Amino acid sequence: MADAWLNKVNWSADGLVPVIAQEAGTNRVLTLAWMNREALKQTKETREAVYWSRSRRKLWKKGEESGHLQRVKGIRLDCDQDAIVLEVEQVGGIACHTGRHSCFFLALDGDAWIEAEPVLKDPKEIYGRDG
Amino acid sequence: MADAWLNKVNWSADGLVPVIAQEAGTNRVLTLAWMNREALKQTKETREAVYWSRSRRKLWKKGEESGHLQRVKGIRLDCDQDAIVLEVEQVGGIACHTGRHSCFFLALDGDAWIEAEPVLKDPKEIYGRDG
Repeated sequence: MADAWLNKVNWSADGLVPVIAQEAGTNRVLTLAWMNREALKQTKETREAVYWSRSRRKLWKKGEESGHLQRVKGIRLDCDQDAIVLEVEQVGGIACHTGRHSCFFLALDGDAWIEAEPVLKDPKEIYGRDG
Repeated sequence: MADAWLNKVNWSADGLVPVIAQEAGTNRVLTLAWMNREALKQTKETREAVYWSRSRRKLWKKGEESGHLQRVKGIRLDCDQDAIVLEVEQVGGIACHTGRHSCFFLALDGDAWIEAEPVLKDPKEIYGRDG
């Protein structure tokens, strides 16, 4: 069966798997997002990351609005088959909707979360609108 | 309030947050595991990773059986506060219960998942028992 590789994934009760996008070369972690079966299939076929938006409840091609696509260089699965790492080239160098390189920009410092990464581009410029 | 930093985390309906353990220095992704509030609190206080085991439904100090502790060098939270990256030093160089460096050792090659990382130590030796 052509989709046997998809059956190897240990999908959660709601049909999802968490996906870590990691930058090829630097190995920096950019995002944690979710995929359903169709998202993973499209990601493999197009070699560009397609996720499942849990808030909007629909497929979401990363960068469809911003242009900040993630070009997929590799797909890895973990030992219990319930988490995925995507090795990606981050188009535009910005993965986060806040205009930062990575979504993981809050660092715990004592008892406070501090912003530890600069905004590279104003989100208004990225999305061409306010808010 | 001393625990205000814990309230900043956007816990899931079942009180958990996914946590990516990333090796300090190489940035390699080692594991994806889960924490509840108590696990994150203990991780911060002890500077060693403590997770919530979803299968055993209890707190689980990483390496408690194997000795393969994860020493925490940094804790980061993402833009929507629902995922964490732990920057760790992996004691013994083995994060996976299969005896591999990383849990993400299955690489998608065409339509097949292939083992892309060597076993560094027989799990029988790690855990001192069969199976």
